[in-house]
Amino acid sequence: MRKQHRLLAKKVGMPPGTLLHIGSKRSERPVITFLCYDEQSVIREQEGISLNELSAASQSGVIWIHVNGLSHVEIVEHIGQLFAIHPLTLEDILNTNQRPKLEDYGDYIYIALKMLGYDEEKQLIAAEHINILVGANFVISFQESNQPIFKPVRERIKNGQSRFRKHGADYLAYALVDTVVDYYFVLLEQLGEQVETLEEELVTKPDAKLLPAIHNLKTEMLYLRRSVWPLREVIAQLERGDSALFKDSTLLYIRDIYDHTVQVIETVETYRDMTSSMLEIYLSSISNRMNEVVKMLTVISTIFMPLTFLAGLYGMNFKYMPELEWQYGYPAVLVLMTIIGITMYRYFSGKDWI
Amino acid sequence: MRKQHRLLAKKVGMPPGTLLHIGSKRSERPVITFLCYDEQSVIREQEGISLNELSAASQSGVIWIHVNGLSHVEIVEHIGQLFAIHPLTLEDILNTNQRPKLEDYGDYIYIALKMLGYDEEKQLIAAEHINILVGANFVISFQESNQPIFKPVRERIKNGQSRFRKHGADYLAYALVDTVVDYYFVLLEQLGEQVETLEEELVTKPDAKLLPAIHNLKTEMLYLRRSVWPLREVIAQLERGDSALFKDSTLLYIRDIYDHTVQVIETVETYRDMTSSMLEIYLSSISNRMNEVVKMLTVISTIFMPLTFLAGLYGMNFKYMPELEWQYGYPAVLVLMTIIGITMYRYFSGKDWI
Amino acid sequence: MRKQHRLLAKKVGMPPGTLLHIGSKRSERPVITFLCYDEQSVIREQEGISLNELSAASQSGVIWIHVNGLSHVEIVEHIGQLFAIHPLTLEDILNTNQRPKLEDYGDYIYIALKMLGYDEEKQLIAAEHINILVGANFVISFQESNQPIFKPVRERIKNGQSRFRKHGADYLAYALVDTVVDYYFVLLEQLGEQVETLEEELVTKPDAKLLPAIHNLKTEMLYLRRSVWPLREVIAQLERGDSALFKDSTLLYIRDIYDHTVQVIETVETYRDMTSSMLEIYLSSISNRMNEVVKMLTVISTIFMPLTFLAGLYGMNFKYMPELEWQYGYPAVLVLMTIIGITMYRYFSGKDWI
Amino acid sequence: MRKQHRLLAKKVGMPPGTLLHIGSKRSERPVITFLCYDEQSVIREQEGISLNELSAASQSGVIWIHVNGLSHVEIVEHIGQLFAIHPLTLEDILNTNQRPKLEDYGDYIYIALKMLGYDEEKQLIAAEHINILVGANFVISFQESNQPIFKPVRERIKNGQSRFRKHGADYLAYALVDTVVDYYFVLLEQLGEQVETLEEELVTKPDAKLLPAIHNLKTEMLYLRRSVWPLREVIAQLERGDSALFKDSTLLYIRDIYDHTVQVIETVETYRDMTSSMLEIYLSSISNRMNEVVKMLTVISTIFMPLTFLAGLYGMNFKYMPELEWQYGYPAVLVLMTIIGITMYRYFSGKDWI
Amino acid sequence: MRKQHRLLAKKVGMPPGTLLHIGSKRSERPVITFLCYDEQSVIREQEGISLNELSAASQSGVIWIHVNGLSHVEIVEHIGQLFAIHPLTLEDILNTNQRPKLEDYGDYIYIALKMLGYDEEKQLIAAEHINILVGANFVISFQESNQPIFKPVRERIKNGQSRFRKHGADYLAYALVDTVVDYYFVLLEQLGEQVETLEEELVTKPDAKLLPAIHNLKTEMLYLRRSVWPLREVIAQLERGDSALFKDSTLLYIRDIYDHTVQVIETVETYRDMTSSMLEIYLSSISNRMNEVVKMLTVISTIFMPLTFLAGLYGMNFKYMPELEWQYGYPAVLVLMTIIGITMYRYFSGKDWI
Repeated sequence: MRKQHRLLAKKVGMPPGTLLHIGSKRSERPVITFLCYDEQSVIREQEGISLNELSAASQSGVIWIHVNGLSHVEIVEHIGQLFAIHPLTLEDILNTNQRPKLEDYGDYIYIALKMLGYDEEKQLIAAEHINILVGANFVISFQESNQPIFKPVRERIKNGQSRFRKHGADYLAYALVDTVVDYYFVLLEQLGEQVETLEEELVTKPDAKLLPAIHNLKTEMLYLRRSVWPLREVIAQLERGDSALFKDSTLLYIRDIYDHTVQVIETVETYRDMTSSMLEIYLSSISNRMNEVVKMLTVISTIFMPLTFLAGLYGMNFKYMPELEWQYGYPAVLVLMTIIGITMYRYFSGKDWI
Repeated sequence: MRKQHRLLAKKVGMPPGTLLHIGSKRSERPVITFLCYDEQSVIREQEGISLNELSAASQSGVIWIHVNGLSHVEIVEHIGQLFAIHPLTLEDILNTNQRPKLEDYGDYIYIALKMLGYDEEKQLIAAEHINILVGANFVISFQESNQPIFKPVRERIKNGQSRFRKHGADYLAYALVDTVVDYYFVLLEQLGEQVETLEEELVTKPDAKLLPAIHNLKTEMLYLRRSVWPLREVIAQLERGDSALFKDSTLLYIRDIYDHTVQVIETVETYRDMTSSMLEIYLSSISNRMNEVVKMLTVISTIFMPLTFLAGLYGMNFKYMPELEWQYGYPAVLVLMTIIGITMYRYFSGKDWI
Repeated sequence: MRKQHRLLAKKVGMPPGTLLHIGSKRSERPVITFLCYDEQSVIREQEGISLNELSAASQSGVIWIHVNGLSHVEIVEHIGQLFAIHPLTLEDILNTNQRPKLEDYGDYIYIALKMLGYDEEKQLIAAEHINILVGANFVISFQESNQPIFKPVRERIKNGQSRFRKHGADYLAYALVDTVVDYYFVLLEQLGEQVETLEEELVTKPDAKLLPAIHNLKTEMLYLRRSVWPLREVIAQLERGDSALFKDSTLLYIRDIYDHTVQVIETVETYRDMTSSMLEIYLSSISNRMNEVVKMLTVISTIFMPLTFLAGLYGMNFKYMPELEWQYGYPAVLVLMTIIGITMYRYFSGKDWI
Repeated sequence: MRKQHRLLAKKVGMPPGTLLHIGSKRSERPVITFLCYDEQSVIREQEGISLNELSAASQSGVIWIHVNGLSHVEIVEHIGQLFAIHPLTLEDILNTNQRPKLEDYGDYIYIALKMLGYDEEKQLIAAEHINILVGANFVISFQESNQPIFKPVRERIKNGQSRFRKHGADYLAYALVDTVVDYYFVLLEQLGEQVETLEEELVTKPDAKLLPAIHNLKTEMLYLRRSVWPLREVIAQLERGDSALFKDSTLLYIRDIYDHTVQVIETVETYRDMTSSMLEIYLSSISNRMNEVVKMLTVISTIFMPLTFLAGLYGMNFKYMPELEWQYGYPAVLVLMTIIGITMYRYFSGKDWI
Repeated sequence: MRKQHRLLAKKVGMPPGTLLHIGSKRSERPVITFLCYDEQSVIREQEGISLNELSAASQSGVIWIHVNGLSHVEIVEHIGQLFAIHPLTLEDILNTNQRPKLEDYGDYIYIALKMLGYDEEKQLIAAEHINILVGANFVISFQESNQPIFKPVRERIKNGQSRFRKHGADYLAYALVDTVVDYYFVLLEQLGEQVETLEEELVTKPDAKLLPAIHNLKTEMLYLRRSVWPLREVIAQLERGDSALFKDSTLLYIRDIYDHTVQVIETVETYRDMTSSMLEIYLSSISNRMNEVVKMLTVISTIFMPLTFLAGLYGMNFKYMPELEWQYGYPAVLVLMTIIGITMYRYFSGKDWI
């Protein structure tokens, strides 16, 4: 369990709706990107628009406002006022610990998501808080970092051929959610490789060093699971089509994402089962090797203890030990020892211990 | 399992509704705090009000009566008569073993909660029985101890800016439940740190002393779980909005707490999984270390047993042992022993045992 | 698994409704207690009433017939005819292996329960088959033994103050069920103490003797669980209020028992989890101790094997061993041995093995 | 897993409804028993009726045709045509691997069951495929073997007193199902004894030979479970009373069987839990005994290694070893050895190792 | 986990409905088979029809187009246009990682399935992506490879006797699904044999080499499970009969497949339980054997250590050791040693260690 995974709030006793950024500051100054389009053309596109310009912007067609960076509370507040967003929603937007959820406020739908990636260096899943507000003719998206994950969507909008122009804000919201879910597959691909590598190592050379790796993977799976299950719920809520904001034509696409999230969940569950299974296999192979070691010890002891005893026997200093006087006493004992040694060896070979 | 955690009643054969304080007496004399406010102002506020004054108090606006201490049955009984509370409710209020629940009696809703904190010294979760009665224009809250956990709420009411004045008793009840749930996050924060510390120690220096700590944590998780799941049920019941006492505007806020309890549950479940996983890791690393120890024993035995046998062999007292007479017999044996020793050592090095 | 816990019938091929007492005979001759009361007074009370008197008894007010002992089939049959009870119900009454259930026959409701107690001597849960029939104005209860568990209820009826007089037969039935459930808490108290004791012993001195105790406890938990879950179902059925026989005012009280059974179930589940956890802790601490033992063996072997070898070396009988002739050969070897011994000891101390 | 338990079909690419007997041939030539009765009397009874006679038989009253043996496809086909049975039903009748199920075809209900018994010799559960077809005034039952399990039912029909005459075909079907379920209790009784015996042996003398027995029992439980759960489903479907073929009066009896199957399931689940628990106990007691063995080895080594070293020390051949010359050197060494031996022994006694 | 089992897509940022073949190319050039029939006769049958011919083909009666090979996107696209198939469906057809699902698009139903077989050589389950589109009077099926799995269906259609002609496209779709499910039984048969073989080996000669085999089997079961559960969902959706495309007469047959998939699932779950159980048994028998080995070591040590000590004792070189001078000292010591040896041996025999 690492600090990053703790999804805890820290605001005992504060009134609800208090706007407070919870999380580590990622990007410097938040950047707002404004895009406005209708069926014919892209009406206006501006990266790095100021709050004032935003307020003044004409609002025909479909408007998409994308904000990179959540650390400046006043930006969220300003946009909130502009579009009449409920304070509780604004609070959730700023809380990077917010779990995935969907809330229908009538005029708009609020969707909280986690963008997940794999940080190869730290060996852990990196999460980013994504918020999407969908209204009748606007989509506002908030993203914690300034990674350009939604750039392909913007390109597709600007490209006249695409389906975007014909559909409204709901299709745009769909496209954003779809993009986030697509990244899950990339993450699963990376985790799958790790699972595979671990499994191979486990079979070829089981080692104590694999233990923390298995444990780490298990913990990451736990975290991933906790992000993915509520995501499914979110999309199931959309798919049920309770909201008038989502048109029937878009619901077909939503069903498609739903299908994807189910696939993600199944893969996560399979990986989880496999990781659990690994630990059992690991324990079994340790026991196996212990068995080998103890067998070896027993073989060595069983062969040499009688021999050493025999040598000790004829090392006794009794005055009257007739064998010691025999001409062939020594070779006889050597022969006897050889016979004992070989017999023991054969006995253990027969038992498949050697 | 500690005595504190046993949620058992002890009243076989007594009629239902018998008022009897079940639990350890915490505060000396219960203290009643009276607060009455409407949209304009706080009408009256009095800490340590007597039962007589309470009966006489005018009842306009929203009334909040908060009682610290449950050990005096007559106070609960008196307030019960004043507000026409059902005997079964009064019985539950006095039973500090009562699990979280919500009961709708038509005129009022009864909510039983657990206030949870972490007692660092005893290393266990400390629970306090909280009762909230919500009527059309009153809220009565009973608390086991005299910790001022609801003080921030009172401050916010007195502060004219706050949302309290505009909303009624239902919003006040919401605020009390919200405060209790907020404390759960503090507890989780503390447990999370413990989980983290344990996990780190497990990786760096697995030790038998960690075993009781892991077990203790597991038991606490069990207890926490048993408190949190019914809490979710309570809030889900509120959210469903069956009761006319809760207005639609408040339900939005209830949904927010619901979201929080789900997050609490998920965190508890994750911690539980992690603690279970710890025990497995612990067992694996004990097995690993056992393996190391047994390997060492085997290496030592395998090297020295043949050498000791050889020394014993030439310690025999046979009259005719030609080797003993040889000029270089002793150095030859020393060389032989060195060769055996080095061979064995290399053999085990090659097997990665040393 | 003990004989007592097997809930099996043995009537292959017999027609349904065949009246046959299944179970061990507990009390000698069944004793029937008759009680008849209305709102004003107790009309008649008679312990040890005969079947004939019973048939003749006037039936105004609420009638409660309680039978101690199930071994006499004809008594059950007679009462069955008197109150027009279905043969399948009579069969279930006589079958002491019957699991808890509720069946609504329209004219009456049949409730089967288990009265549970802890037999300290045999270290197992003792169960008794309780049957309650509730009609519009009568309650008939059958109990396997002659333990006076329902005596407090009778006292409360005779005491004019009590709520019984005002309510009808349904409240009486509630009171009987409530009494049985209250005994569950007593049982849980006793099991809880056992769990606690076992846990403490496990931490202070883990011993092979604890293993059967843990296993025994686990089996008892299994049995308890199997009795408690259907009980919850029974009470949930009552609470749902499908039957016209139960008035709304009584349903509030039923909800109270429901709450209690949920608490019983949660406690049982917690105990179960704790007992499972115990076994894991036990296994871990055995592994730990094994580790200690093997470490000791390794330390002893590693210290004495080289020393013994050295002694054997200088015990060889070669003619030309220069060291043997040296004046200080013996003390030198002693010093060498001491150095080896101390070095080894330090090595193991450094590794925390000693 | 034994061949008998595999419930697999082997008909890839064949059209549905292909009549093919799947299973091992049990009885020689199938025997058909015809019984026809109404409220007054048994109209006709004939064991070993031919297919022609069957076609000609008058069909007033309730008809019960019972077939022992499934290996002759043409018999099933003929009866199928006579009563207009759907080909899919006939296919299921002939497939002895068919899992328990109920299918309502409107005109008739098809019930597939497993008759279970315990084969003491092979130590496994023997299953027999039972099929029951219930129409408005007929019951047709097919049984794999020629065991007379339904004979008591026939006797009860012929006995005028019984409830059969008054009720119709649905009651007869109930009686057949009831008989099959009753046999489950006999099986559980036998398995219960095995569980008990195993458990006792586990406590008194845990032995490697118990391992296959435990495993065998676990596998049987798995198989039993797989037969019992769908049975419950079947009876729950009947109980729900969707079909017009089953009268309300019969439904009361169906509820009774439902109750029995729930009891069977609970017992199976308890046995399963107990068997799982056994394996854990077994592992723990093996670990315990290993501990004892290793302790013994350590005690022996720790006592004799220093003594042997000492003996070896004074067996060295240095010229100048003053102790060797002492008059009381030998007794002194003997005394020293005794002291070492006793000290060690006491040390281990104090640690409770001996 | 092998590469084949990863069901992941790789299309981050691409618009939905982008047609892209995901999977390994199996067959060279896709082959399209055209079949058109009505109640009277097979109107046209052509294997290897070109896309142009397909467009021109008259479309009376029921049309079945079967495509072997998915690697040529343009074929899927062409057929998609011809029958007005939604782009999302076409995308799913081309994605061989698609999990089993059913989607109702109004005009047609899309069914994705997995054809499963066992690759004996690689010891893993080989999966093939099967797609079935059912319209009012057409069925289009896409198959990844060119294995002739649907050939028997074609034969049955051409054979005038069969039920196909009388039923429509829905019955044909049923027959295709049925064929795929039938292959699951073949797979289960093969896996069952493997489980049986493994189990037998585990009992007769438990070996470290079984560990990877068990693990492999477990992983295959995980994979199988992941394919089978959604299949059940698919067929349950069909059975519910929501779509007008499936006639009631066909639903009876669908119920039959549903029954089969339930049986498949139960068998898979049983195998899973058995494989899990195997690992436990394996661990237990390793522990057992370790016990045997350690016992042997202890017996050998306990017998020879005292003897060696005794021999060492009389090998000491003290000047005054009276025993050494005795005439019968040597035989006396031999006798003593024999007594010690026999006593020890008997002691261990009595403890059942030898």
